[in-house]
Amino acid sequence: MPTYRLTVAYDGSDFCGWQRQDNALSVQQVLEEALSRLCQVPVSCRAAGRTDAGVHALGQVVSFQLPERAGGPLPLRALVLGTNHHLPPSIVVQDAQLVPDDFDARHSASGKMYRYQIWTAATTSPLHRSTHWHQARALDVEAMREVAAVLTGRHDFRAFRAADCERKTTVRWVKKIEVLRPGSRETEPMLHIEVEATAFLKNMVRILVGTLVQAGKGKMSTEHVRGLLEKGDRTQAGPTAPAHGLILVRVHYGPREGP
Amino acid sequence: MPTYRLTVAYDGSDFCGWQRQDNALSVQQVLEEALSRLCQVPVSCRAAGRTDAGVHALGQVVSFQLPERAGGPLPLRALVLGTNHHLPPSIVVQDAQLVPDDFDARHSASGKMYRYQIWTAATTSPLHRSTHWHQARALDVEAMREVAAVLTGRHDFRAFRAADCERKTTVRWVKKIEVLRPGSRETEPMLHIEVEATAFLKNMVRILVGTLVQAGKGKMSTEHVRGLLEKGDRTQAGPTAPAHGLILVRVHYGPREGP
Repeated sequence: MPTYRLTVAYDGSDFCGWQRQDNALSVQQVLEEALSRLCQVPVSCRAAGRTDAGVHALGQVVSFQLPERAGGPLPLRALVLGTNHHLPPSIVVQDAQLVPDDFDARHSASGKMYRYQIWTAATTSPLHRSTHWHQARALDVEAMREVAAVLTGRHDFRAFRAADCERKTTVRWVKKIEVLRPGSRETEPMLHIEVEATAFLKNMVRILVGTLVQAGKGKMSTEHVRGLLEKGDRTQAGPTAPAHGLILVRVHYGPREGP
Repeated sequence: MPTYRLTVAYDGSDFCGWQRQDNALSVQQVLEEALSRLCQVPVSCRAAGRTDAGVHALGQVVSFQLPERAGGPLPLRALVLGTNHHLPPSIVVQDAQLVPDDFDARHSASGKMYRYQIWTAATTSPLHRSTHWHQARALDVEAMREVAAVLTGRHDFRAFRAADCERKTTVRWVKKIEVLRPGSRETEPMLHIEVEATAFLKNMVRILVGTLVQAGKGKMSTEHVRGLLEKGDRTQAGPTAPAHGLILVRVHYGPREGP
């Protein structure tokens, strides 16, 4: 069966997350309904990242299959434009590709990059309120970078996962944690934390960010964070940063590398 | 009477602009009502820039006076927090200062800086849809910069104003027009156009942007734009770019300089 790969962006504010739920509107449901309407067959999608409620995406990757049809696969441009026609403005298909039959957006992924956005000013910004975590006090970026360096690499991240995370193996390879200051500090006091890994545990990025912010406030040392990696005690890590600052930016496919 | 200066940010999406109107909700009305509720007296405000419907602000400046009160002027921190308490999340007071009695946010201003935000990708971005003008085709940034250089300086901008603009003098000093590419081109194909001038005509920034975008599409040459400045024919300039990409970033006070 022809298999398609979509790159999808969404504003997660109005959704209960990627995954279908009985009593709330998910990105998956809205996208599947749009695809089904366009293709006139039931469509079920797989996503690279099952983003939580409120989490956004610039480059979520989704795969689905369609039955063979006379005339060959759907033209890709028609697929993009036609799906967007049936979607609300909060979800946009950016790109469509035809991929090998064994492609699975989730299992074929070799890595993902998330960005966490923080607004550091005494007051919130109305233009950034649905995409940035507000921190009223200045954060020590150098201290955050030192902790980021400790967390980068292949470690047991069991101190950095949600209590209900069911993964058996908790070792993950974090390839990059960058603390960036984009834009002008005066008019746009933003902090971006980019985290790239081959795979993540549940809430891992948000707990890493909560821990970095504690370090930025001078409340957590690199020594303490080394201890977290050794002892794996979730209660000693930072809080889970709120969902609305998190964006799934990019999904990588290709050979899995790593230590 | 004690005179206060506020720095105010707002998401213009839900307002008919800064200025009060009979049948629509303005930023001015909402802010004045919040201040009146906090101060328990009627408050009327003056703003540096009377932004149009849909235009946003990161650094609008507003002034108002309060009657003398026992105990001296309002504590500034209480003024910020108290006003924000009465405001919707779409409007945030960032800062308050006590200023000389003759300070008037509009007439004392010596310059303003606006930023216009463009999203250049085949499809729109749901996370940027209320703050960026979507351009589906790539723009030639170098061509835009050449036209920006022609427009910078002291010129008669009567070709770059709304038909109903009532200003008698149409010479303005544009100190800066910068075409910037912030962020990563791959995941965030944004273009920022920053325009700074001592004063503006009605819709001037949006018509300048519309003209730059025509140049970016290869539809308007520097020669043509020189002719616009000489002949002043509005019909030969670019279209008025939509309001929702425009942000009033900063207002300058201080001695008026310039040629």
